[in-house]
Amino acid sequence: MALRASLRSKSHLSGFLSQWSSCSSHGRVCVSPVLVAQRRNNSTSPKVKVDFDQSTGVAVMSMQSPPVNSLSLDFLTEFCISVEKLEMDKSCRGLILTSSLPKVFSAGLDIMEMYGKSPERCGEFWKAVQEMWLKLYSSNMVTIAAINGSSPAGGCLMSIACDYRIMADNPRYSIGLNETQLGIVAPFWFKDTMINTVGHRTTEVALELGLLYNPAEALKIGLVDQLVPQDEVLTTATQSMTKWLAIPDHARQLTKSMMRKPTIDKLMANREADVQHFVNFITKDSIQKSLRMYLEMLKKRRG
Amino acid sequence: MALRASLRSKSHLSGFLSQWSSCSSHGRVCVSPVLVAQRRNNSTSPKVKVDFDQSTGVAVMSMQSPPVNSLSLDFLTEFCISVEKLEMDKSCRGLILTSSLPKVFSAGLDIMEMYGKSPERCGEFWKAVQEMWLKLYSSNMVTIAAINGSSPAGGCLMSIACDYRIMADNPRYSIGLNETQLGIVAPFWFKDTMINTVGHRTTEVALELGLLYNPAEALKIGLVDQLVPQDEVLTTATQSMTKWLAIPDHARQLTKSMMRKPTIDKLMANREADVQHFVNFITKDSIQKSLRMYLEMLKKRRG
Amino acid sequence: MALRASLRSKSHLSGFLSQWSSCSSHGRVCVSPVLVAQRRNNSTSPKVKVDFDQSTGVAVMSMQSPPVNSLSLDFLTEFCISVEKLEMDKSCRGLILTSSLPKVFSAGLDIMEMYGKSPERCGEFWKAVQEMWLKLYSSNMVTIAAINGSSPAGGCLMSIACDYRIMADNPRYSIGLNETQLGIVAPFWFKDTMINTVGHRTTEVALELGLLYNPAEALKIGLVDQLVPQDEVLTTATQSMTKWLAIPDHARQLTKSMMRKPTIDKLMANREADVQHFVNFITKDSIQKSLRMYLEMLKKRRG
Repeated sequence: MALRASLRSKSHLSGFLSQWSSCSSHGRVCVSPVLVAQRRNNSTSPKVKVDFDQSTGVAVMSMQSPPVNSLSLDFLTEFCISVEKLEMDKSCRGLILTSSLPKVFSAGLDIMEMYGKSPERCGEFWKAVQEMWLKLYSSNMVTIAAINGSSPAGGCLMSIACDYRIMADNPRYSIGLNETQLGIVAPFWFKDTMINTVGHRTTEVALELGLLYNPAEALKIGLVDQLVPQDEVLTTATQSMTKWLAIPDHARQLTKSMMRKPTIDKLMANREADVQHFVNFITKDSIQKSLRMYLEMLKKRRG
Repeated sequence: MALRASLRSKSHLSGFLSQWSSCSSHGRVCVSPVLVAQRRNNSTSPKVKVDFDQSTGVAVMSMQSPPVNSLSLDFLTEFCISVEKLEMDKSCRGLILTSSLPKVFSAGLDIMEMYGKSPERCGEFWKAVQEMWLKLYSSNMVTIAAINGSSPAGGCLMSIACDYRIMADNPRYSIGLNETQLGIVAPFWFKDTMINTVGHRTTEVALELGLLYNPAEALKIGLVDQLVPQDEVLTTATQSMTKWLAIPDHARQLTKSMMRKPTIDKLMANREADVQHFVNFITKDSIQKSLRMYLEMLKKRRG
Repeated sequence: MALRASLRSKSHLSGFLSQWSSCSSHGRVCVSPVLVAQRRNNSTSPKVKVDFDQSTGVAVMSMQSPPVNSLSLDFLTEFCISVEKLEMDKSCRGLILTSSLPKVFSAGLDIMEMYGKSPERCGEFWKAVQEMWLKLYSSNMVTIAAINGSSPAGGCLMSIACDYRIMADNPRYSIGLNETQLGIVAPFWFKDTMINTVGHRTTEVALELGLLYNPAEALKIGLVDQLVPQDEVLTTATQSMTKWLAIPDHARQLTKSMMRKPTIDKLMANREADVQHFVNFITKDSIQKSLRMYLEMLKKRRG
């Protein structure tokens, strides 16, 4: 219902659609914020590429699921397994998260996981979203997001779950939790992570208005820590990692846990209820109808 | 006792009195901070004017209780009823709060409600102050404060209970929770709202020193969101409202509730104790004596 | 183990050692961060000098325990007794905390209190550290830190436990909670005090990387409130104190308590467990071995 309200909102829609339509014609960065209806490719090729350098103890994980690294159940499952493997490997101390795709880090949750699916499947999907956040936010590794493209919604969540954020200084890129713009609501643990990053008041405005920030704005409010030219994002992440790894792991891990444990415990204590809450919301007739309209709109624009 | 101490403090008082004395002679903005001994007019004319535009869904509520929109029990009762009416009206989606008086938004709580009144009456008054905050802070409408004048103490509380604050860029205006300057203490929910707006450390200094900020300072610490020339405050508020209303109500309301519910629940769980606490404090002989001295001082200055 | 890891980290150590080695040759400010192996002097001369001006109600407490005002059990005991005496004296309303030594405010906890000591003695030491923080953070007096030198670790804790911080604008000085750099972890109440001062995200980075900030950086993040030339630190503190004392004590104290009580209550509720936690950690073989290596290194450098 809320989503439908959004789709009916003309001024909002036109801005949204023009963003999409400008994609093909001007080569602009075009990422469907929040929800992505990714073309299925059913490929068995990995959605996440991992390069682990034993000599430095640092792994680079590149998301490579075209066109926009949308977070499908398959993607999230593969992502979590990859992180888990590195976490178990004592020789891996640092993780750099980046994208292999041009212009986009990750466009967030895959809309196709929410449309026309059974409650069971929706629940399975949401558990995977939770798992992705839990793995990143509580990782014993140093985690650095090398944000080399736009990073709305779920992509922003991935970023703020890391220890440090370096973003490409391209004014066409944007980052933020823009869920309300599509009539949906960021859950409490998205909100908590955001508050821990940029504070209460900035989070309030950002989430209520569903704001997407360009890199300069994101730096100013503390949503990212550093801006560098596009082609220096990864090298800068590597240099930063060296600084973080100079700190004894044990002390850093205990300190990180002390800072993040209350936020993690809150989801852990409400995990099942949070799944149920999501399933109830997303399977509503009104929301499903909104998603269908949204998908048809996307199809027309692409056709 | 504490208030008396303040009144005896010469350096503080002189600054305070000079502010008042300069009122008539130089036409300066003169608002008694915190407590206002408003001349009774016993008029039955409304203290709050409401203009609701059905076409936009936005109501403008103008406080018009001369001389300084002090928050008396009558004022608060009328204010709460007006907000409640708009809240019940599904077609009203946004509320702009402003003042019809020159130079002052609201000067805060009315001292006459605290001096020489029975504990029952004091309790009734305090419940109305709570109700005003609860109504604003939890409103389902988008609430924008168009702060076109000084806004100390209770006036500041009204402002920070809104979703967005636009202030007239007049260096003579001030805003802040200056309770300690008169020897009284902002209650925990004033403090919580302030922390949610400007953070813990800024709140600590602001409340302990009872700081009043000019518009530029208020913008810098995040106590207001935007400064514009005096004659553009209302039009800017209207433009901002359009931006807020572009977000689907349902998603925005759920997000707002998620951000503010813990703070609201805290007062709701302690509402009666908070009333009792206020009544016990304000009816103390020492405090009543201080209030009398304060009122006599005001009378002399005016005479 | 963690500390050992740190000591083995070549790049980190070299930076650390060069800092020490540069002490004698260039007259630079050289304070062993976090842990100090202070030469014993067994003197009975007071480690803390108190000048109380009855006419102003302000006491200046100067730490004078060469070479670096390290926080030994003796020092802390004397410190707490001095603060307690002033606290009990109704005529004392303000406390300025400063150092009589050149270039250093306080270098933090004394390493000799942690090396080769019995668990009982370690526990006694940690209780004294807790007591120092509790006394400062909950003081009814206005407390101003006149930070006229470097202030790492425990010195930083002392500073942020005060109401206001004025630091000498000397780029050679530094301040911060740098515990992780030596493989140890700031306890939760250090962390809470830091969050209350600079916010969650800044604290996260500061503590995980064990960052030391120069005065300009410290001002920018809000770790200190004001910078002045070295020779104006004390006079500025005295002027600031006048401003703070203009506020009625009763109202200021109630407000301060409202802001800080939750943080204080958290330690009070976990005080014994916190002592046990510290004792268990510090008496580990691996930690003791690290401390021995650290002390031998210091000895060599000094020889």
